[in-house]
Amino acid sequence: MESYLDNSATTVCSKRATDMVVRLLTEDYGNPSAMHQKGVIAENYIKDAKQKIASTLKVDEKEIYFTSGGTESNNMALIGASLANKRAGMHIITTGIEHASIYATTEFLKEQGFEITYLPVDKDGLVDLDALSDALREDTILVSVMQVNNEIGAVEPIDEIAKIVHKKSKNAIFHVDAIQSYGKMIIRPRKSGIDMLSVSGHKIHGPKGSGFLYIRDKVKMKPLILGGGQQKGMRSGTENVPAYCGLAEAATEMYENFEENIEHLWNLKNRFIEGVQKIDGCSVNGKTDMTSAPHIVSVSVDGVRSEVLLHSLESENVYVSAGSACSSNKPAVSRTLKAINLNPKLLDSTIRFSFSVHTTEEEIDYALSVMGEVVPKLRKYVRR
Amino acid sequence: MESYLDNSATTVCSKRATDMVVRLLTEDYGNPSAMHQKGVIAENYIKDAKQKIASTLKVDEKEIYFTSGGTESNNMALIGASLANKRAGMHIITTGIEHASIYATTEFLKEQGFEITYLPVDKDGLVDLDALSDALREDTILVSVMQVNNEIGAVEPIDEIAKIVHKKSKNAIFHVDAIQSYGKMIIRPRKSGIDMLSVSGHKIHGPKGSGFLYIRDKVKMKPLILGGGQQKGMRSGTENVPAYCGLAEAATEMYENFEENIEHLWNLKNRFIEGVQKIDGCSVNGKTDMTSAPHIVSVSVDGVRSEVLLHSLESENVYVSAGSACSSNKPAVSRTLKAINLNPKLLDSTIRFSFSVHTTEEEIDYALSVMGEVVPKLRKYVRR
Repeated sequence: MESYLDNSATTVCSKRATDMVVRLLTEDYGNPSAMHQKGVIAENYIKDAKQKIASTLKVDEKEIYFTSGGTESNNMALIGASLANKRAGMHIITTGIEHASIYATTEFLKEQGFEITYLPVDKDGLVDLDALSDALREDTILVSVMQVNNEIGAVEPIDEIAKIVHKKSKNAIFHVDAIQSYGKMIIRPRKSGIDMLSVSGHKIHGPKGSGFLYIRDKVKMKPLILGGGQQKGMRSGTENVPAYCGLAEAATEMYENFEENIEHLWNLKNRFIEGVQKIDGCSVNGKTDMTSAPHIVSVSVDGVRSEVLLHSLESENVYVSAGSACSSNKPAVSRTLKAINLNPKLLDSTIRFSFSVHTTEEEIDYALSVMGEVVPKLRKYVRR
Repeated sequence: MESYLDNSATTVCSKRATDMVVRLLTEDYGNPSAMHQKGVIAENYIKDAKQKIASTLKVDEKEIYFTSGGTESNNMALIGASLANKRAGMHIITTGIEHASIYATTEFLKEQGFEITYLPVDKDGLVDLDALSDALREDTILVSVMQVNNEIGAVEPIDEIAKIVHKKSKNAIFHVDAIQSYGKMIIRPRKSGIDMLSVSGHKIHGPKGSGFLYIRDKVKMKPLILGGGQQKGMRSGTENVPAYCGLAEAATEMYENFEENIEHLWNLKNRFIEGVQKIDGCSVNGKTDMTSAPHIVSVSVDGVRSEVLLHSLESENVYVSAGSACSSNKPAVSRTLKAINLNPKLLDSTIRFSFSVHTTEEEIDYALSVMGEVVPKLRKYVRR
């Protein structure tokens, strides 16, 4: 038996997405910039992919820009918007629990002279709205908040944040990192007041190397990658048609069976939490009710180092993450866990279980039974 | 019959590369940053891919950095080296016939305060070495020259250029855009004095969305895309294992049958040139001997607009390019053709034929027979 519970790190590519990738690598392989039919065919595939994705967000297909993944989307959003709008101000607001692709980029922008405010969060990882309100200024040009935290599954109050931002700072662009939420939540950028939204394909059973950035019409942006002027000059380079269209297939699959998928994920999450809480020493971090994400559970195991637990689990074919696992296997202390004020002795004793629509109840039960065996054994060796 | 002669725009992905992509999307799909076995397996695939690629260049695998394609490689090389070395100077040299992903990037750097010198070329597209020598200064930090021009197939004297650069400007980093040469020429960066080298996968039957940048050990660089610190911090984002490994397979195929492949390409090119020169009004631009690239032929057709010819050819299933076709189907006047001082009346009457190892003699003969029918018909309507 095997239990892959590391779906927030990456997912298997679905059959439908893979088939599309193969077709576009080997049959309809034209360069969309070519003027002949093979180019036109490829261009139509991209148009179709944009339409499919736009329809999942109820936005215009012209507002979808493909990228090489979530990290590029986040870099493009932050750097592009900052450079394009710096005459209006150089103040940027984000939170203390963002993904490294946001944090590293805001730190880069700080070097370029921008001022960055990192908002605090509460014990459940929710952004302090009063702090946001206080931080917003006339020269605030950008606010970036993730929708679902990748480590503990906290869901930020995006709609409220957008209202506060747009009310207090007329020039501020509101960017949402939706890499962990897209496919698992209904997202309506227009209704919610979201100006830019980052998505990654490989988190939702699409191909690696695929992603997009939604940019609301009229948002002033500069490109990050320059060249032949593809995608209206916003992202140059021969379009990766296979990846873009594979992503569109995966997105369609997530949303055409949305209710069923989400019900399945909640069933898995509730089943897992019920079981894991019975194991001595285990506690679940953050919210676990319907206001949290349906696919992420953060568990602290008192007295057991996360790395040791991870390897004990993997020896029984249960695959999980220590920290966010998006940070190039450097075991560093999690900024998120520190920000929610986790008991310091648990900082290095926390692992993440993350589910996908392909995860089965059997995998959950198997993982729980392995945890039930492994955790007591490891805790025996703890000095108290 | 069909004749796809637009292989410098993009190529079909080989079976071996496609199989690798599929395997890594659907079976060994782990995130290389994950600490468990599935991550380790993915990491080993990347290591193997780097080794395979490094061996084609006789460099160290640690000097290979994967990207999302040639355009990103070129952006990363120029922006990364400029930002990292600007204390040593702010002067950059390149040529007047570079690809848009170089030209747009140097123009961006100019906006950031760098000074750019564009070197002239002769009628065959070869860089003026005296002009290079004169342009080099103490504060020159970067020289970027393409190895094979994408429009006319000129091969630049990279070794001589490197010698001049390193002799006259101790701080200058020498970057080579090898997007049209890799796989079709033996390249030895160390021996040749190349500090950075850009490659794209989809030009050599690898997957779209794949590329790499060779960065010689000890070259000072900054990353273009920031985040989790993957690839030693030089290119963040979950590694696109399928694309990287697909590219490594394609590269291996090109070089393990190298002599045979090149002989085949020369056979095709010579056969094509012999035939096309017999057609009234057709002339071949640039060099055509063994000092030119084996896979690109630029043909001007007096009195016929390239767009009209392109569409006439495609109606007979012969696929070619007008201009470089990497520029998002905007029909603009080619900087390369202007730089080689092409007769102005031919600027808009020039098309590119580009071959691959998969191209057959039959395709060449078919394309020639279609040209032989179409060109005289179109020339009849020319006012003289």
